[in-house]
Amino acid sequence: MSNAFADRLIETVRKHDAPLCVGLDPFADKIPALFGDLRQDAAATLLKFGSSVIEVAAKHAGVLKPQLGLFEQFGEMGYATARMLTEYARSSGMLVILDAKRGDIGTTAEGYARATLGEKPGFDADCVTVNPYMGKDTLAPFVALAAQKQKGVAVLVRTSNPGAGDFQDLQVGGAPVWQRVAQMLAPEVSQLRGASGWSGLMAVAGATYPEEARTLREAMPHALFLVPGYGAQGASAADAVAGFVPGPRGREGGVVNASRSVTYPQAAQNAKSMNEWRAAIGEAMSAAAAELRTACAP
Amino acid sequence: MSNAFADRLIETVRKHDAPLCVGLDPFADKIPALFGDLRQDAAATLLKFGSSVIEVAAKHAGVLKPQLGLFEQFGEMGYATARMLTEYARSSGMLVILDAKRGDIGTTAEGYARATLGEKPGFDADCVTVNPYMGKDTLAPFVALAAQKQKGVAVLVRTSNPGAGDFQDLQVGGAPVWQRVAQMLAPEVSQLRGASGWSGLMAVAGATYPEEARTLREAMPHALFLVPGYGAQGASAADAVAGFVPGPRGREGGVVNASRSVTYPQAAQNAKSMNEWRAAIGEAMSAAAAELRTACAP
Repeated sequence: MSNAFADRLIETVRKHDAPLCVGLDPFADKIPALFGDLRQDAAATLLKFGSSVIEVAAKHAGVLKPQLGLFEQFGEMGYATARMLTEYARSSGMLVILDAKRGDIGTTAEGYARATLGEKPGFDADCVTVNPYMGKDTLAPFVALAAQKQKGVAVLVRTSNPGAGDFQDLQVGGAPVWQRVAQMLAPEVSQLRGASGWSGLMAVAGATYPEEARTLREAMPHALFLVPGYGAQGASAADAVAGFVPGPRGREGGVVNASRSVTYPQAAQNAKSMNEWRAAIGEAMSAAAAELRTACAP
Repeated sequence: MSNAFADRLIETVRKHDAPLCVGLDPFADKIPALFGDLRQDAAATLLKFGSSVIEVAAKHAGVLKPQLGLFEQFGEMGYATARMLTEYARSSGMLVILDAKRGDIGTTAEGYARATLGEKPGFDADCVTVNPYMGKDTLAPFVALAAQKQKGVAVLVRTSNPGAGDFQDLQVGGAPVWQRVAQMLAPEVSQLRGASGWSGLMAVAGATYPEEARTLREAMPHALFLVPGYGAQGASAADAVAGFVPGPRGREGGVVNASRSVTYPQAAQNAKSMNEWRAAIGEAMSAAAAELRTACAP
């Protein structure tokens, strides 16, 4: 298959036979003491915890999603650590969707596109999440760089948080705002389509709204979905893949993110050694992959 | 007056007798060679250019707006430099509105709030720009931290870029989305009101749409406006203050940002020495302040 991001993503999902994306969300009150204290020694703790998660995740999932805001709270060292972990995950064979939710006008959007998708000193991530509120011209620099570098752009369409509907659900001529966003992205979806037929213009489609995911799939038949909300946020595996469609090996059409449920399972919190911790998160990732595999079975 | 951000902002505007906000936007192709080559030696060039702009800006304007995306393109060193320049501007007596346009769900928004408004290792900026698309719960951590630390939050309502209308202008029951955003922010505006009557819940209101600015003022009578689009983006001083209202010393109600027109004026590009450069940008800032002062005159 080609090297387009959409093709690389669908290929790794098929290889793992599960659409699991592991979210890397560093929380000071959840990282086990084995890794040090995030409040005292942020960079070392972030690097050790993050790289250890990646080592296990690479066996169970094709995609990693670092949550940049949780790194930035530790300042420039947190920002640098997120970049190093992105590099480490990619060198471990994972695709990285950098969850940065950027969005800005022209020249600044170019800056953010270079910062996230561009090579060093950029993150050189495979895909970045972006916010569409400011308009399509603000997405253009991300899409242009993605097209040039065979990368992806994941646009917030219908998010999974409690207040997601405040603005996304406002009714515009009989349809919610998020459907209009989806419709308006058709040219960008076409622009980033790979040989698989799927597009690297991804839509963020919250798993907590499975009905909407099906509607969104009709509006965006070729967009890969990035589905948050599975696991700790309460959505089931079946809900999470509601927007997927039949493919050569079962239902496909994106990746489902799990963060807290697979990186901070209870058994890992109580682990006495790194080996115990690795076994605990490996088991949680394996279980999540199996659950998603079943939900996608033909 | 109190120490609330809104009061500090309106006080410095009154002191300078002009609502000028200087935008700090580092462009590799615009920074004069006097400061080094941004592509070769990013950190030193950013620090030297940024601190030199601040030294002049502090004489002409009360507020500085660093555009974080243009720093992030230089990686963690760019990110660190933006933080150091924020600290330098504040120690020079300026208020800093960090233009980061962040927005994310609960715990991640808390991370971004700490990163931007929190103390070291955060930026400790006076105010941060945020994106409302994901819903009001995603703004809450910023507003909570701002309330606690007497700081501000500038919400993107009606931006100044060409594509701003794509989603912001979609009609919802006879009014555009941006008006609904404005209406829904009423509780947050109340929460951040200072003794002056103005609120540190600012609205970003593009100067390229003066009619909308007047409508927005009706919807948000107490919100201070952050007005982009003046100068290089084409709006006049009169357009820029269209949403301002009569105050004790003339029209007031926010700050107007000028970036390229005051930090890269033609005379500065041709400067042979730092003194010439300082004189050139000082003149451009003085002219912008005078133009805004005239537009605000009672």
